Amino acid sequence: MPRKPTLSVAIVGVGLVGSELISQLLALPAPSPFRLVSLTSSKYTLFAAAGLPVDAGSWATALSASRAAPDLHALLEQLAGLEAAVLVDNTSAQDVAALYPRFLARGIHVVTPNKKAFSGSQELYDAIERASAESGARWLNESTVGAGLPVVQTLKDLVATGDKVKKIEGVFSGTMSYIFNNFSTASAGGPSFSSVVRVAREKGYTEPHPADDLNGADVARKLAILARSIPTLQSALPEGYASVQTRSLVPAALESVANGTEFVEKLPEFDAEFEKLREEALKEGSVLRFVGVVDVENNLVKADLQKYPTTHPFATSLGGSDNIIMFHSERYSPRPLIVQGAGAGAAVTAMGVMSDLLKLVL
Amino acid sequence: MPRKPTLSVAIVGVGLVGSELISQLLALPAPSPFRLVSLTSSKYTLFAAAGLPVDAGSWATALSASRAAPDLHALLEQLAGLEAAVLVDNTSAQDVAALYPRFLARGIHVVTPNKKAFSGSQELYDAIERASAESGARWLNESTVGAGLPVVQTLKDLVATGDKVKKIEGVFSGTMSYIFNNFSTASAGGPSFSSVVRVAREKGYTEPHPADDLNGADVARKLAILARSIPTLQSALPEGYASVQTRSLVPAALESVANGTEFVEKLPEFDAEFEKLREEALKEGSVLRFVGVVDVENNLVKADLQKYPTTHPFATSLGGSDNIIMFHSERYSPRPLIVQGAGAGAAVTAMGVMSDLLKLVL
Repeated sequence: MPRKPTLSVAIVGVGLVGSELISQLLALPAPSPFRLVSLTSSKYTLFAAAGLPVDAGSWATALSASRAAPDLHALLEQLAGLEAAVLVDNTSAQDVAALYPRFLARGIHVVTPNKKAFSGSQELYDAIERASAESGARWLNESTVGAGLPVVQTLKDLVATGDKVKKIEGVFSGTMSYIFNNFSTASAGGPSFSSVVRVAREKGYTEPHPADDLNGADVARKLAILARSIPTLQSALPEGYASVQTRSLVPAALESVANGTEFVEKLPEFDAEFEKLREEALKEGSVLRFVGVVDVENNLVKADLQKYPTTHPFATSLGGSDNIIMFHSERYSPRPLIVQGAGAGAAVTAMGVMSDLLKLVL
Repeated sequence: MPRKPTLSVAIVGVGLVGSELISQLLALPAPSPFRLVSLTSSKYTLFAAAGLPVDAGSWATALSASRAAPDLHALLEQLAGLEAAVLVDNTSAQDVAALYPRFLARGIHVVTPNKKAFSGSQELYDAIERASAESGARWLNESTVGAGLPVVQTLKDLVATGDKVKKIEGVFSGTMSYIFNNFSTASAGGPSFSSVVRVAREKGYTEPHPADDLNGADVARKLAILARSIPTLQSALPEGYASVQTRSLVPAALESVANGTEFVEKLPEFDAEFEKLREEALKEGSVLRFVGVVDVENNLVKADLQKYPTTHPFATSLGGSDNIIMFHSERYSPRPLIVQGAGAGAAVTAMGVMSDLLKLVL
């Protein structure tokens, strides 16, 4: 049984998720199958082929003491010279994502919670697939959907073992989950839509500008990632998330409001519209949920506000800012395979990244 | 990026799960990372180091035409001579399980839905861990709990990435799930306990002798497997499932009834007892569920009949013979990570085995 070589890890992006990942990586029991060889922030970078001489308490200081500016092209050459290496991209940057094919082509694995590369143009996605197939380097992105929840791998396993996925349906946005779990319940009345959004923003559950959640793009990106893991849908979304049929909850009149605080101040003007939707749903014995659907049989991928009976798991079982994802397949039929839990947060996102790293050294 | 060698697969046990696994394995798109080198039934065995010349339509005939009797010691030597090999044990036999340490010690991976080795004596479990650590060969057993549901791997990921698991609570037996989903609902009345068991047996949801489900041992075995994946509980169950605090639902007076049909005929004598439990629960606004609990903080592992409020997911969200497993951890708190879906059946069990095999060639 040949032992695997130690995997050299280069981490790009040391914000909330990146810092948490570094903690988890450095806390592994010895002998670790990993060697941390590089750290890159927006300002600085560090590299040492033999491993950075840092620990959980010292990496941040060491990084900010570096005089080297970030240079991903140099990093690519540095990693390509190592026996086995992985690029971990904890940014949400398109320009980092655009480099994945070049890293993969040089035999460097890519692990990331960054949705950009897999939910954008078909061209980039195909280049990633091709580079990986040619070099044998792998890309893993469990944390792009549901953070640490086993969603992407579960779908891959269903597909790889020959199951036929019929439909994936779920609440994929923690923000949307929180908003509608609080706005639309089985009881009449309740807080106004704008007040729920305001509170969500105050709690840090939304982006600084809530429109960045309410426009549905985050859900559409996750759907694009899942859809592309299903053979018959691999090329169904040429523009990625932009090809997903997406309902934006941003009132048309507020689309040009560039400031989050101003947006929240003006949102009450539209409460009556949301109130009407809530009442209509309740009259049918339903609640409103913002869901994502990958309907394989009908070739339809959509992010939409939909009604669910108050007895449906999306109504009964959801709480907080939970994600819930239902996989309907030939094997999991008539009852679906369900995964549920927190779908956002640094610790659980980093956990998804870390579990991908562990797959590479199994 | 060095390519991995093709993994030679030896399958022992070609019943329902084994046959389905062979179908899934042979249906993988070319080039397959696997080579099927051996098949072993209770009567016959086949081996060819270069790969058996069989396909989905011919393997069963080829196997029964073999003149060689099963010989796992010979198989061990045959596999040890290959570059990379895995033993897949689809039996539920203790004597096959007892050989895992010897296969692992020779660098042969073990993948199995057989619970025996991991839920029995600490001695065998430790021997497996030791052999694996020494040789680098891996053992994977996703299908031992929840069949194809991502349960074992999810727990391993939580632990490996440094989360602190506080409690695992779930309905781990498809049979018990079916029985109590039908026997104990939010409404008063309902069928008698014995009639639900009888129907479950007629539908093939129970073992031929329903006491083999009702005694709770199957749940206790699954709990032992999960508990041992948690560092602080790794040695907490010296006798494995026999050390789990287990409530048997087999009436004491029927414990010696060796025949399943006779058991079902006599069970109505005890309906009043179960009826009383159901009514007591309902009076508290609860339903009965047979659950497994791994309470890490209190060092308690138990399989028990418990009451859950009619608003609890075990009451609202379960149906059919679904399993549901909740992981409460430091990160997944206060709301747990939940996995739910069919937890038995040949196709989903084989899928769990196949996904373990795929982990070895990632």
